[in-house]
Amino acid sequence: MPGAKKPIAVVLLSGGMDSCVTATLAARHYRLALLHSSYGQRTEAREYCAFEEIASRLKAELKLRINQNYMTAIGGSALTDQSIEVPLASPLTGTDGVIPVTYVPFRNAHFLAAATSWAEVIGARKIFIGAVEQDSVGYPDCRPSYYESFGDLIETGTRPETDIKIETPLIGLSKAEIIRQGLLLNAPLELTWSCYQSSNKPCGACDSCELRRRAFEQAGVEDALFRSTD
Amino acid sequence: MPGAKKPIAVVLLSGGMDSCVTATLAARHYRLALLHSSYGQRTEAREYCAFEEIASRLKAELKLRINQNYMTAIGGSALTDQSIEVPLASPLTGTDGVIPVTYVPFRNAHFLAAATSWAEVIGARKIFIGAVEQDSVGYPDCRPSYYESFGDLIETGTRPETDIKIETPLIGLSKAEIIRQGLLLNAPLELTWSCYQSSNKPCGACDSCELRRRAFEQAGVEDALFRSTD
Repeated sequence: MPGAKKPIAVVLLSGGMDSCVTATLAARHYRLALLHSSYGQRTEAREYCAFEEIASRLKAELKLRINQNYMTAIGGSALTDQSIEVPLASPLTGTDGVIPVTYVPFRNAHFLAAATSWAEVIGARKIFIGAVEQDSVGYPDCRPSYYESFGDLIETGTRPETDIKIETPLIGLSKAEIIRQGLLLNAPLELTWSCYQSSNKPCGACDSCELRRRAFEQAGVEDALFRSTD
Repeated sequence: MPGAKKPIAVVLLSGGMDSCVTATLAARHYRLALLHSSYGQRTEAREYCAFEEIASRLKAELKLRINQNYMTAIGGSALTDQSIEVPLASPLTGTDGVIPVTYVPFRNAHFLAAATSWAEVIGARKIFIGAVEQDSVGYPDCRPSYYESFGDLIETGTRPETDIKIETPLIGLSKAEIIRQGLLLNAPLELTWSCYQSSNKPCGACDSCELRRRAFEQAGVEDALFRSTD
């Protein structure tokens, strides 16, 4: 169909590397409807700035920023604001053994619910999410079976004529492989933001900075983000 | 186990009749963790007032109000704020043939995602939702198969030791049967709010008021809400 418009895909774009590569991949075959969720991240303003820059570079056709800050209340203050003994089956711990304030189990379902609703409203055929199985430490919502199950939910919970499929193109890759894939596609990795401590210059000390540093090292390339902020 | 505490159940409580009866049912066997979502309803403040009154009457142990107003942006303004031709497969219409501003496909998934996250954080075993199959005009997220599918998603997307089941005790009932059930259980139906036009006195003209009027008529009882507001 020469001249026919490409179909639309909703892409969950946080502003980090994984979602940036995912969006770049999606852009090859789809018009982009980029969805960003604010859910109480510490460096949210900086992430959103990255979102805007990536969206502009990838010539997104639609953008939507949604506020899902209520997750903070679920994961954090709801535990402490009430005076009951919290009957936790087992502690919810972060990588440093401490419960992060904004930690929310089942978090990706909130993003996917928003993506699905929006996809149905704008007539998108696909939802892209940059989930990576290696990241699913202790939590199963980065595994392929989870996305299959969400696909079934979409099938069951939308109109019969609706056809929306979830795509997780990075799910089996390592961080280094994601970087190599990004460079191959000319993804704007230098616009992405990974640090979750600082919003000016990456702190270089947090888990996320360390993960990024090691991944670029393994990929054998320089991280252009540091070039531009040094 | 005499003296043993009852387990906790999360109940989605809008402030309407269905969720009020559902919460009353749940209270027989569970301690209540009541969840209310503001998602841009016209009479939201009045609904929340009903939520608080019902929560107090049912002696809820935990309450959580979350803001999911972003749904308005997905269902409404996102369609009009952008200058693209919206490729809708078919029109999304309300009962009067007009797209409601706050209409969101896949809406219940947003509520259930929040309920699941909260249930996992507080160690609840059940999620109660007052879905009624008869209400699912054109949309399938009030059918039993939808809740089975969401149950699978919870199974797949939470930790292996987590055991949260969705309960839909009203799913097969008519509105009149729900009212009879409510009266039988002494559910505080007089505290519920159904009208979606007015926040002072039910307008008596909107679909929801009409549905309520007819249901009480069919149940053969007087609606105490009108007694208290006349």
